[in-house]
Amino acid sequence: MALSKNVVKYISALQIKKFRSNFNKFLVEGEKIVGELIKQDVFAIEKIYALPEWLENHQSSIPHNVPFESISETELHKISALKTPNKVLAVVEMPTPANIPTVLVDCALYLDGIQDPGNFGAILRIADWFGIRQVFCSPETADLFNPKVIQATMGAFLRIPVQVITLAELLQNQPQIQVYGALLNGQDVFHTQFQRPSLIVIGNEGNGIASTNLQFIKHPITITAGLGGGAESLNAAVATGIIAAVYSNQRSS
Amino acid sequence: MALSKNVVKYISALQIKKFRSNFNKFLVEGEKIVGELIKQDVFAIEKIYALPEWLENHQSSIPHNVPFESISETELHKISALKTPNKVLAVVEMPTPANIPTVLVDCALYLDGIQDPGNFGAILRIADWFGIRQVFCSPETADLFNPKVIQATMGAFLRIPVQVITLAELLQNQPQIQVYGALLNGQDVFHTQFQRPSLIVIGNEGNGIASTNLQFIKHPITITAGLGGGAESLNAAVATGIIAAVYSNQRSS
Repeated sequence: MALSKNVVKYISALQIKKFRSNFNKFLVEGEKIVGELIKQDVFAIEKIYALPEWLENHQSSIPHNVPFESISETELHKISALKTPNKVLAVVEMPTPANIPTVLVDCALYLDGIQDPGNFGAILRIADWFGIRQVFCSPETADLFNPKVIQATMGAFLRIPVQVITLAELLQNQPQIQVYGALLNGQDVFHTQFQRPSLIVIGNEGNGIASTNLQFIKHPITITAGLGGGAESLNAAVATGIIAAVYSNQRSS
Repeated sequence: MALSKNVVKYISALQIKKFRSNFNKFLVEGEKIVGELIKQDVFAIEKIYALPEWLENHQSSIPHNVPFESISETELHKISALKTPNKVLAVVEMPTPANIPTVLVDCALYLDGIQDPGNFGAILRIADWFGIRQVFCSPETADLFNPKVIQATMGAFLRIPVQVITLAELLQNQPQIQVYGALLNGQDVFHTQFQRPSLIVIGNEGNGIASTNLQFIKHPITITAGLGGGAESLNAAVATGIIAAVYSNQRSS
């Protein structure tokens, strides 16, 4: 049985934020990420749409309460947000934000207006790699549930809770939080002794940390350029990776 | 005078590798990068196409031997490779590869099949930030002159020479090169004492370093995951940034 026009319309609409909010659903695609999705129980899956070849190998791994449907390549193209669809697509329920704790225990990241989906995804992978269990975003940051962000996380969104909250609100009632910010004139990150609980603030790709948030940065830190370097800046995800690596190395040694 | 159909066809064709090779030209777009382009004299500019507002502010900075043409927003849309064209586009001559030295003096990067234009661009920014003056690529790596790569470099391609060469060829007659490779079971990068001249090999996003190149890796290095980390890997540009930062910090201390 072919997908109805209404189903195609519904799933395609989930590429747009407004409709994701209306339906409270988002898309997860591809063998790797859907493979991880069906092994976890935080995110409820509404339905899985897959090519026969994927179902042949994975049907037994789909939880019993999750419906699935075999579709053709042409149908997958119609509902996929990817240029090159990858065998399987899942419609997933958005989690309720109330589940995510805002009390900082160890180290967390605060994304202040990250716009590029690739950067956002790469940053969640960084958190997931280094065992940073909390990521917060300003309201200006790209939408986590944008299909491009979800795909760029390579599945990290399944393990790292992300919450949208202003920096002021997050810090309210938590005066013990040590706020570090990636800035141009701070202390060299390799010479920084991170104190816990630490919050590392990463600014927007073009404009850096919002001027209204600068007041909260107690510890400005900088990735020192090398001799003869000519670039004006590093990519935001790359900068986050370097800071997280130094933090993680310090913590383990 | 409006752009002729042939000019639109010619410039649009430069989005495709085959035509870039045929014409020996590539595209550079946007205020920031073209602003840097007109200040340097390594790359010869064939012509600049710009909105009147850009020319008003920058016409005096265009070198005397570079022709330019005022075009409308509609025309810029027709010739631009960007979703959101940014005021100015330059058609630039490709450099002749013979100009680039392959003898390693200090530290260089070798990209073994990097495919994502955003990663490739971010890696050139890393080299440019940390003062790494040479970047080499395997023939399987994305084309530097792909407009998406050029834009993602944020201008770093103007300062960092990139040469396509096999790893075997690069190492031939240079037995002194210390070859480091980002692998999963190597020495922790923070505990690695880099010896010069160093070549840091970064593998493909999905498959890592090519099996035929593994034999050349004398020093496997690893970015140790944090306690409780769940990700299978880091983004390739993020991994490159962490290794380059540790190298640069070690060199300066």
